[in-house]
Amino acid sequence: MQFLTTHLARCGTRLCLGLDLDPERIPDRYQSLPDPLGALGADIVEATADLVAAFKPNAAFYEQQGPAGWQSLTELVARIGSRAFVIVDAKRGDIGNTSARYARAFFDRMGAHALTLAPYMGRDSVEPFLAGRAAPVDQLGPGMGAYVLALTSNPGAADFQLLPVDGRPLYWRVLEMLERWNSGWAAGRLGAVVGATRAEELAAVRQAFPALPLLIPGVGAQGGDLDAVQAALRLGHGPALINVSRDVLYGRDPVAEPEAVRERARDYARRLDLL
Amino acid sequence: MQFLTTHLARCGTRLCLGLDLDPERIPDRYQSLPDPLGALGADIVEATADLVAAFKPNAAFYEQQGPAGWQSLTELVARIGSRAFVIVDAKRGDIGNTSARYARAFFDRMGAHALTLAPYMGRDSVEPFLAGRAAPVDQLGPGMGAYVLALTSNPGAADFQLLPVDGRPLYWRVLEMLERWNSGWAAGRLGAVVGATRAEELAAVRQAFPALPLLIPGVGAQGGDLDAVQAALRLGHGPALINVSRDVLYGRDPVAEPEAVRERARDYARRLDLL
Repeated sequence: MQFLTTHLARCGTRLCLGLDLDPERIPDRYQSLPDPLGALGADIVEATADLVAAFKPNAAFYEQQGPAGWQSLTELVARIGSRAFVIVDAKRGDIGNTSARYARAFFDRMGAHALTLAPYMGRDSVEPFLAGRAAPVDQLGPGMGAYVLALTSNPGAADFQLLPVDGRPLYWRVLEMLERWNSGWAAGRLGAVVGATRAEELAAVRQAFPALPLLIPGVGAQGGDLDAVQAALRLGHGPALINVSRDVLYGRDPVAEPEAVRERARDYARRLDLL
Repeated sequence: MQFLTTHLARCGTRLCLGLDLDPERIPDRYQSLPDPLGALGADIVEATADLVAAFKPNAAFYEQQGPAGWQSLTELVARIGSRAFVIVDAKRGDIGNTSARYARAFFDRMGAHALTLAPYMGRDSVEPFLAGRAAPVDQLGPGMGAYVLALTSNPGAADFQLLPVDGRPLYWRVLEMLERWNSGWAAGRLGAVVGATRAEELAAVRQAFPALPLLIPGVGAQGGDLDAVQAALRLGHGPALINVSRDVLYGRDPVAEPEAVRERARDYARRLDLL
């Protein structure tokens, strides 16, 4: 994802704002609108698009609204357009024939620039997300790349991701595979999701795979320490995005108020230097 | 999923029909309808509901249609109702907070009886799909259980699922974890996806985990041998579903014709004894 390096430099920040908008935490004045979640999402995008490098809408928060939520997510992605990099956090992955359908859903129909994927089903579950799509050169567009889960920020990460495979944890094997794929058919268009909650491991990852694009969730509400993450990132050079969701959307507020979201996003963007 | 044993006995078959309906393989007369995929799916359900134990709609095939596809899938699940067990094949899994949203989307809003899940993110990515839902006793209802990917039927399965962890392949660790969870908080409501394309491994799985509910894809178009699968299943007793998709939907036909689908489903149902 070479284009991301240019994009991050242009934005002057590596902040990714996670749009995990909780339908129960919407300001009152939105509640009477036909699509409260959609309207709030739109206002947050307008309030923050000049401050962030990327948006990461979480598919589950829209799917729980049924067909209207899917429509709402589609409109949100269209609204962002090419103002920021759009990663839909959907964690898909299936046999090739099915992954190709997911690629169509998120890239061709919805226009997402990238998607998060689960690695468990291997190469043919990932390949259809890149196959037949030209590598982008200088502007954001649908299907530019994908981020595959490696080491996640939740407690359950230990259940499988840390299991030892020939002396290395499983997630390390995922990273090795991504690097191999990036040198071949994936042509550098795959990144890895590595959680901020494990800063030591993040530093080791960055050192061993310095060019691998990273998407780093878990800062803020999930407990990841920003300074430790930034220190780790200095050990490599691939484009890295730091995602913050709840801590920017809500902070200590009960609901997400676009102007307050903007203030918190600005605060985070300042703290995230480009290194 | 104790209730499944009763359900399979009542149905007299373990056939699960995979509804991977390809929008490009729809009979001409459906093309002029407002929702061709939905109308065809409805006709196939009506033509086969008395012959199958379960239906497995594949979420990707509906998502690729955008919001209308999501609506179509919702209507399909409602149409099946409690006539057959409905597993939505969505392979979800995320941090707990997000998995709870997916559970709401598929169980509370859509009414699916079960879902397929990806294991990579561990326990807290699976738990929200069962938490707070009463274990069903004698009739089909939303959120009865979930099937977690263990050994899948695609070539990429070898990339991670077969990696050795302390002398056993990774998928074996997933099965052990599922068995442990089933003895505790999951109360027997988790099953495993084990592909038919690896009959020897399936036999070993069935022998080592005889009570574990199984969902077995990969028969037919993907190359799994039915007799070998049935022989393997005789080594255990947990409720097992054999999924067939393309081979029943299309056979050698270019499009899915409900009456022909019924004939092929009947043929498969006869060949799948309950053991």
